[in-house]
Amino acid sequence: MPGNSFGTLLKLTSWGESHGPAVGGVLDGCPAGMELSEIDLQKDLDRRKPGQSKLTTQRKEPDKVKILSGLFEGKTTGTPIAFIIENEDKNSSAYDDIKDKFRPGHADYSYHAKYGIRDHRGGGRSSARETAVRVAAGAIAKKILGDIRIIGFTMQIGDIAVREFNIANIEKNLVRCPDAKAALKMEKLIDETRKAGDSIGGIVEIRAVNVPAGLGEPVYGKLDGDLASALVGINAVKGVEFGDGFGAAFMKGSEHNDEMVIDNGKPSFKTDHSGGIIGGISTGQEIIARIAVKPTPSIIAKQDTININGEEAEITVEGRHDPCICPRVIPVAEAMMALVLADHFLLNKTSRVQ
Amino acid sequence: MPGNSFGTLLKLTSWGESHGPAVGGVLDGCPAGMELSEIDLQKDLDRRKPGQSKLTTQRKEPDKVKILSGLFEGKTTGTPIAFIIENEDKNSSAYDDIKDKFRPGHADYSYHAKYGIRDHRGGGRSSARETAVRVAAGAIAKKILGDIRIIGFTMQIGDIAVREFNIANIEKNLVRCPDAKAALKMEKLIDETRKAGDSIGGIVEIRAVNVPAGLGEPVYGKLDGDLASALVGINAVKGVEFGDGFGAAFMKGSEHNDEMVIDNGKPSFKTDHSGGIIGGISTGQEIIARIAVKPTPSIIAKQDTININGEEAEITVEGRHDPCICPRVIPVAEAMMALVLADHFLLNKTSRVQ
Amino acid sequence: MPGNSFGTLLKLTSWGESHGPAVGGVLDGCPAGMELSEIDLQKDLDRRKPGQSKLTTQRKEPDKVKILSGLFEGKTTGTPIAFIIENEDKNSSAYDDIKDKFRPGHADYSYHAKYGIRDHRGGGRSSARETAVRVAAGAIAKKILGDIRIIGFTMQIGDIAVREFNIANIEKNLVRCPDAKAALKMEKLIDETRKAGDSIGGIVEIRAVNVPAGLGEPVYGKLDGDLASALVGINAVKGVEFGDGFGAAFMKGSEHNDEMVIDNGKPSFKTDHSGGIIGGISTGQEIIARIAVKPTPSIIAKQDTININGEEAEITVEGRHDPCICPRVIPVAEAMMALVLADHFLLNKTSRVQ
Amino acid sequence: MPGNSFGTLLKLTSWGESHGPAVGGVLDGCPAGMELSEIDLQKDLDRRKPGQSKLTTQRKEPDKVKILSGLFEGKTTGTPIAFIIENEDKNSSAYDDIKDKFRPGHADYSYHAKYGIRDHRGGGRSSARETAVRVAAGAIAKKILGDIRIIGFTMQIGDIAVREFNIANIEKNLVRCPDAKAALKMEKLIDETRKAGDSIGGIVEIRAVNVPAGLGEPVYGKLDGDLASALVGINAVKGVEFGDGFGAAFMKGSEHNDEMVIDNGKPSFKTDHSGGIIGGISTGQEIIARIAVKPTPSIIAKQDTININGEEAEITVEGRHDPCICPRVIPVAEAMMALVLADHFLLNKTSRVQ
Repeated sequence: MPGNSFGTLLKLTSWGESHGPAVGGVLDGCPAGMELSEIDLQKDLDRRKPGQSKLTTQRKEPDKVKILSGLFEGKTTGTPIAFIIENEDKNSSAYDDIKDKFRPGHADYSYHAKYGIRDHRGGGRSSARETAVRVAAGAIAKKILGDIRIIGFTMQIGDIAVREFNIANIEKNLVRCPDAKAALKMEKLIDETRKAGDSIGGIVEIRAVNVPAGLGEPVYGKLDGDLASALVGINAVKGVEFGDGFGAAFMKGSEHNDEMVIDNGKPSFKTDHSGGIIGGISTGQEIIARIAVKPTPSIIAKQDTININGEEAEITVEGRHDPCICPRVIPVAEAMMALVLADHFLLNKTSRVQ
Repeated sequence: MPGNSFGTLLKLTSWGESHGPAVGGVLDGCPAGMELSEIDLQKDLDRRKPGQSKLTTQRKEPDKVKILSGLFEGKTTGTPIAFIIENEDKNSSAYDDIKDKFRPGHADYSYHAKYGIRDHRGGGRSSARETAVRVAAGAIAKKILGDIRIIGFTMQIGDIAVREFNIANIEKNLVRCPDAKAALKMEKLIDETRKAGDSIGGIVEIRAVNVPAGLGEPVYGKLDGDLASALVGINAVKGVEFGDGFGAAFMKGSEHNDEMVIDNGKPSFKTDHSGGIIGGISTGQEIIARIAVKPTPSIIAKQDTININGEEAEITVEGRHDPCICPRVIPVAEAMMALVLADHFLLNKTSRVQ
Repeated sequence: MPGNSFGTLLKLTSWGESHGPAVGGVLDGCPAGMELSEIDLQKDLDRRKPGQSKLTTQRKEPDKVKILSGLFEGKTTGTPIAFIIENEDKNSSAYDDIKDKFRPGHADYSYHAKYGIRDHRGGGRSSARETAVRVAAGAIAKKILGDIRIIGFTMQIGDIAVREFNIANIEKNLVRCPDAKAALKMEKLIDETRKAGDSIGGIVEIRAVNVPAGLGEPVYGKLDGDLASALVGINAVKGVEFGDGFGAAFMKGSEHNDEMVIDNGKPSFKTDHSGGIIGGISTGQEIIARIAVKPTPSIIAKQDTININGEEAEITVEGRHDPCICPRVIPVAEAMMALVLADHFLLNKTSRVQ
Repeated sequence: MPGNSFGTLLKLTSWGESHGPAVGGVLDGCPAGMELSEIDLQKDLDRRKPGQSKLTTQRKEPDKVKILSGLFEGKTTGTPIAFIIENEDKNSSAYDDIKDKFRPGHADYSYHAKYGIRDHRGGGRSSARETAVRVAAGAIAKKILGDIRIIGFTMQIGDIAVREFNIANIEKNLVRCPDAKAALKMEKLIDETRKAGDSIGGIVEIRAVNVPAGLGEPVYGKLDGDLASALVGINAVKGVEFGDGFGAAFMKGSEHNDEMVIDNGKPSFKTDHSGGIIGGISTGQEIIARIAVKPTPSIIAKQDTININGEEAEITVEGRHDPCICPRVIPVAEAMMALVLADHFLLNKTSRVQ
């Protein structure tokens, strides 16, 4: 099955392996007449690229994107926008030792079980390098969205959680955390974990503001359903929740329901326990999603595993890895939310007769 | 956009409103030659149907399913299987008073914002009555899955959580809880909540055993991505997690990675922190998903809201409602997991050249 | 594979067998707020239904359609429109003798080869009875299209071709032919053929007027590509052509090109050799498609065939059949064109920003 | 709408403009473990490339294809296969004069009407240059098909039709015609037409042998429906027919039906009037499709047209064009048939239990 496309009216098709010549994508369905340049894409790619700080992998990829089609004189033409990002800092020999072993927590075994063959170098297709494609496409989606703005940030690393929320802090610290004090503790924890050859998980939140009411399609094309698929589909994500999410399990209906009022002449809600989506359709409130990010599986400690011949083995995963993937997951999660929202924005143009 | 179908090779299309003549579905793509009868579907429908106990809505629906196509002499023929479930115990007049008001926590407002028109009776298309269709189709999917078995149960209601796990207990109590003692407390809590005119949330877990390694499609057709969409798309579900899920945020890689060994000559894992899916592809381990279920929004307490004329109003939602939806969500969630797994089971038949 | 749905934003899912309890469909994606009633559907169904004259099968089906969902107070709500047409005049015993034999020219053998099982009664799923579903859905599509009007007619039966074109004649004769004189000859030919226990083919033309320029999606979702698929997918259709079609093979570019002028201040064409579609996108001209309709395969003459045990056999196909399917294909072909145009009409709402 | 992908389990996504940096594609869903190299693709690309003879455009494109992903050590891995073909011999200035005018018979006007913006250089996205992508992908599809062999050839140019059929002749003459004598006449006709600054149409036939019975999905995913869409979607194709096609209009059922016999112990047909497909499913017979190819719209003669300001104008289309596109359409049509058959070959793996 072709699992490398997603979206209905705005469709991203992605390709490429971690240690192949390049990764790239084709974004089809972007409306014609929109101003767009490589700079729009590069800005978000720079936020995702490796080697940004001591907290991220030391692989040095400039991640320069080239657009190959779909633009004419600085505007989209309605035809597919193909883009390519070359892989430059490949160090495939680092993977020679573990070529035939399955790294615990990685997709090595499941790919092997599925296909019987895999490009082991850097994880091949299962590498998070593929997420550069999502970020590039997401940047285009953000332009389609116009006033709808998407913002992501770290809510928790290990047992350190955000206590104060100041949006202005987010891009000022290495972990993209809205709480400056917590950010310092998080950075310290990640650095210590890295030095110990281990890794650590966390929670990331993504919000969208100015989303009009009415996006989302009942009953299997729900906005939260599509967001859930898009966000859980990001490497290392093990869960997603909207609004109060799992906290709703503890709540009464009288606590969770968002009552409505008229505010400045407009329909409004007193609270946003629902995270901006009810019945799979946006309410006009802020959309709030949180994702659980597992600790990077690449760790230095010796682990038990098996090899492709079905024999038990030990493995140590050297190479260059992120001790905590949260800071770099943020632009990816923003991109996925942008792609889903832009698709539903287009889909909603046909919900009513004039 | 047509949001009422899902699946790629096994595709369910659903239709119907809560107070229309019937709800129904078409399951297309079921392989030919499989024994199937209405009894197979009825068994699961009876587990979902309303009026099972004092803990559920008192709407009395026999939920008798009729199959209209796709079978010949007791076997599937490969052609679409259409089925229909009539709505019998409709009490639409109960909704007359709130016809023009938006019930907080319900999809009334978002549907209105989207379509400008809606069938308000019993929630129309947004009613959980539609989930009967999913359960019927899921029963067919379960037959396609053969040895793969799916089981769902309640893990938590309000602040009462499962402490002991005994699978044999599940269908023996009204809340479908594997912990007999916790079940009693849960039942009591739900009953008290009901009497207070309120509702309560909870957490449900769904597992699948005997799933072969290799199901799921990288990178946007991931098994966990598709399950996330299917499960979050169920009415009242506000989050989903796999394996350790949000717990992974607190963990180190050395704790979360599932090490591999050879067990009885076969690849095996020491633990299942990943919930049976890595890189979007099944590992052969048990698949473990948990969903957050919000408290039913229909409560007796007076709430603030607005009406379709944009005026503020008060509302009291009478009618017959579930004080806690968890027990009845379970067969629905099982059905959704079955449909996703069966689809990926079929999809995986083309992953390799012979 | 689920092959029983088609359309992207306006999606029809069909189900049912010729001798099952009913046939039916679900049309998903119809915009909300459009007036619609069963009468709209019935009108076209009456044009397709069997038993209209001596030239068609004598099976008596009232083909009364019931709408089961998607409407509220006479208007569409944006939710799926399910409809059902019961099978009343089933005479399954007529098929007992040929239960195990493959009727030449019918899909009996290919279904058997594919599925290993089939409902032989009346052709089961492969019966043209399924086209009632298309006609019902097409009637809804026609309402979505508003000013766009679709008209079909017979161009040729056997070697009798239309010589004079008068649109007013079409619904006045039994073969739906715009040439009154040719119509008489066609009727006579069909009647003679029927009496001889044989059947005859023909050519049907479908046109759409008032189609705006710009419908169709390059390069694999072309308007003519989608129409070709929709029309060739009708039972008994063996070919399709647009504008001059196969005649273009004999032409020079200087003859075939449609030159442009300004007419009444609007872009216009001197000719319509292209049939209203260039580069897969509508030009604003009249859309002209023609389909080749093979002679009905059910004939009384003794034919050689084989049975499901792989033995040679002789077969005589009794039962009630159309000696020429053209008159009844017309509403079906109109419906398919309407569904494709309505889908592209919706799709085109997202071609440009703003 | 994203119209630049097609296929269900084997999905091609194409991108690129005639005078952009490159054209390319992504083929997703190719089974893992199949040997593949760029040479496999190049072979067919060389049959399509421009500048092969005096009968084709003089644009000189080496059409060297590079594969960027999806292969490991010479085998497919199940991940998407991206490939790119650079545009080298662009001569965009030749289009400066006609930048604002719509070339009759070309997609200039319909693209403009749809998008309000277009890359006019060489036809941009609507250029037949895009078909190089189809040919490259089709070469991969051919490998998936194994024993199924596809062959295309010219049946008619202007009024010169094939009279003798010798498959061995096809690749021996410039027009790919199985009749050596007719080929000479066709070449002469094309050359004369070219010298007159005009162009000429023709008919091309595509056959597939060794296709197993059972490919194709009722009722809207029919094999002939999908082939019709794929073939009509090729630039300049105005019609398609299967088996006797439009000839069936003149036939009786007793003439058109393909009677069955047992031949060498296997089900067999006496004739192939149906072109190897009945009820949308392959019969195991040879698949026979014919397409009508219009004369290339680029001609030197002065033509009337309008410009983007809505003014009447005259146009002369200089540049390098094919006077007859049939010889170069053949590899494209073969590729489209291969892609459709390979997709249905994969789809059919799930038609039965077991």
